[in-house]
Amino acid sequence: MVITQKIEHFNSPLYLESGRILESYDVAYETYGELNSDKSNIIVVFHALTGSQHAAGRYDGDVKTGWWDPLIGDGKVIDTNKFFIICANILGGCNGTTGPMSINPSTKEPYRLKFPVITISDMLRAQQNLFARLGFTTAHAVIGGSLGAMQALCCSIEYPDFAKRIICLAGTYATSPWAISFNKIAMDGIINDPQFEKGQYEKDAFKEDGLLGLALGRMAGHISFLSPYSMRHKFDRNYVDTDGLYELFGRFQTERYLEYNSYSFSKRFDPLSYLYIIKAMNIFDAARNYESLKDSFSSIKAKMYLIAFKGDLLFLPDEMEFMRDTLYELGRKDMTEYICVESDYGHDAFLVEYEKFDFYIKKALE
Amino acid sequence: MVITQKIEHFNSPLYLESGRILESYDVAYETYGELNSDKSNIIVVFHALTGSQHAAGRYDGDVKTGWWDPLIGDGKVIDTNKFFIICANILGGCNGTTGPMSINPSTKEPYRLKFPVITISDMLRAQQNLFARLGFTTAHAVIGGSLGAMQALCCSIEYPDFAKRIICLAGTYATSPWAISFNKIAMDGIINDPQFEKGQYEKDAFKEDGLLGLALGRMAGHISFLSPYSMRHKFDRNYVDTDGLYELFGRFQTERYLEYNSYSFSKRFDPLSYLYIIKAMNIFDAARNYESLKDSFSSIKAKMYLIAFKGDLLFLPDEMEFMRDTLYELGRKDMTEYICVESDYGHDAFLVEYEKFDFYIKKALE
Repeated sequence: MVITQKIEHFNSPLYLESGRILESYDVAYETYGELNSDKSNIIVVFHALTGSQHAAGRYDGDVKTGWWDPLIGDGKVIDTNKFFIICANILGGCNGTTGPMSINPSTKEPYRLKFPVITISDMLRAQQNLFARLGFTTAHAVIGGSLGAMQALCCSIEYPDFAKRIICLAGTYATSPWAISFNKIAMDGIINDPQFEKGQYEKDAFKEDGLLGLALGRMAGHISFLSPYSMRHKFDRNYVDTDGLYELFGRFQTERYLEYNSYSFSKRFDPLSYLYIIKAMNIFDAARNYESLKDSFSSIKAKMYLIAFKGDLLFLPDEMEFMRDTLYELGRKDMTEYICVESDYGHDAFLVEYEKFDFYIKKALE
Repeated sequence: MVITQKIEHFNSPLYLESGRILESYDVAYETYGELNSDKSNIIVVFHALTGSQHAAGRYDGDVKTGWWDPLIGDGKVIDTNKFFIICANILGGCNGTTGPMSINPSTKEPYRLKFPVITISDMLRAQQNLFARLGFTTAHAVIGGSLGAMQALCCSIEYPDFAKRIICLAGTYATSPWAISFNKIAMDGIINDPQFEKGQYEKDAFKEDGLLGLALGRMAGHISFLSPYSMRHKFDRNYVDTDGLYELFGRFQTERYLEYNSYSFSKRFDPLSYLYIIKAMNIFDAARNYESLKDSFSSIKAKMYLIAFKGDLLFLPDEMEFMRDTLYELGRKDMTEYICVESDYGHDAFLVEYEKFDFYIKKALE
């Protein structure tokens, strides 16, 4: 499946939850499969923190596939023979949708730290505007994991008529102080790194070496995506080769994993974008503009599929259970499915252990 | 209880596990209570990662007490009316005992990154030499939490005739990849921080502003010392005041906690010392020089008291349980006590929730 990127430009203002306005903005996206004549086969996929609109397939000449390629494609669980799938880069991102390094039309300079604080609701609003532009008023299903699950949940509350099925994986109703703490390492790492230059860095400043503060924050992220159990299974106390300064110290396999994933990441992901996205994650609370979560959930009409992972230490299964119980309290037992997948992989399970949950998604889409 | 610091200088070489030698070294320590005539009332306290020999009482004119003052003192669980307590700063530390910023007698310059890698066994050897110098050949008990528990365990294996009772709190038999990963943020944060200058920084370089890499590493440490549950109870999603750059972002209580504890720490603790101590922690494995943990434990003669904390996410209770089971396999059921304290505080419980475990210590010391 060879994929091309698409982009829509919006010249009308986007009103943000903070009260601020983006005068104009872009939304970058990809689609897989064919839209049917009555537009009844649309599945919206929301990506996670550092994912992108490239959810499946490969770009021409590229060997790497999209981040959920094992699930999306010809004959797969999210079957491109049946469904038309769309995935858009989130607002604040750095893959084509407007973010802090985009040009502010008023100043003709990048926004940088003048970019407004954005929320999950804002991300969703930008995407809803994309769907409207494309003529999509309803979806067969929306689905997302982690930050994507926050968008899916938000969609069920704020656009109750949009989707018939909402599938949330490894999500929560409000970001916990535990998750906020892991993000804190990235936030302070980036802001206080002298090379960040208070956001005034050159556009390609980190292509070669990456920003150390972002790499350290990403290490914290990767720890939170795993768990003591998954690390024991994956790495145990195995040593690997040593080199350079590390010669003095030796190096463990788990250290190499963190290095490999974090230093490469800091070369390819924009630190301002990371800052704005983790802030959006931190302030996410589905009950924020309501009396209570029950009040917030009272607008939901879709069938809700909540898929938690037993070993998820970032968004604990008990957070999903609280969502389930709140839906039950609202008398929505027949419209709520909660599954806790047996896994000790940690939060990342939704990107790894497909065989443990893909049939739930298949069933949900039927 | 007004305390004075003591220091012993050793002019004989310390042979390290790495094969390297410290030609001479100092060990700084404190004592509380009175030694009895037959030297049968000695309790050795081992401090944790960033603790110090200042376990109890206060220095003249100081308001702050030692780190385990609620447990050690007149009429307390570790009663200074009955016991003579000694606590020494660990080798590699920065509170008087020889560490990487000490002067290398061969070069008359600080060792810095030329300081040898040290291990928990090396720390213990330096302390055993101190005890020998002071004329102590046995102890009524040794006790320690976290890194202190590693020293206590090591003592039970390597000096089986030294103590009658070994009390380990919140410890493990081998540092897990999960714990190593948290340390990795500090290790890379320090080593790659340009201000660290590959260890060639001025002695008081960080007194004013602290080293960012160390502060970020310490944040990671503090996260690992708590847990999702304890953070939920302590901080929930409460906001606090905002200031400076944070105005843009708002600030959560959990973020302020991490800031408060990490930036102040990076002004008072030597980054090279931190590097060497976390490395010693990382390479700790009680079975390393043996066929198996059972083989390693076969030399133990003392009664072992293993106190785990249910919510400890850094050194999980199942690690202590493995120690218990190994001792059972060796037929030492009557010489092993295992308690898992009901607590969701996390690893830090041994420094906080005294009322939940102090009676176990009192009983163990009887």
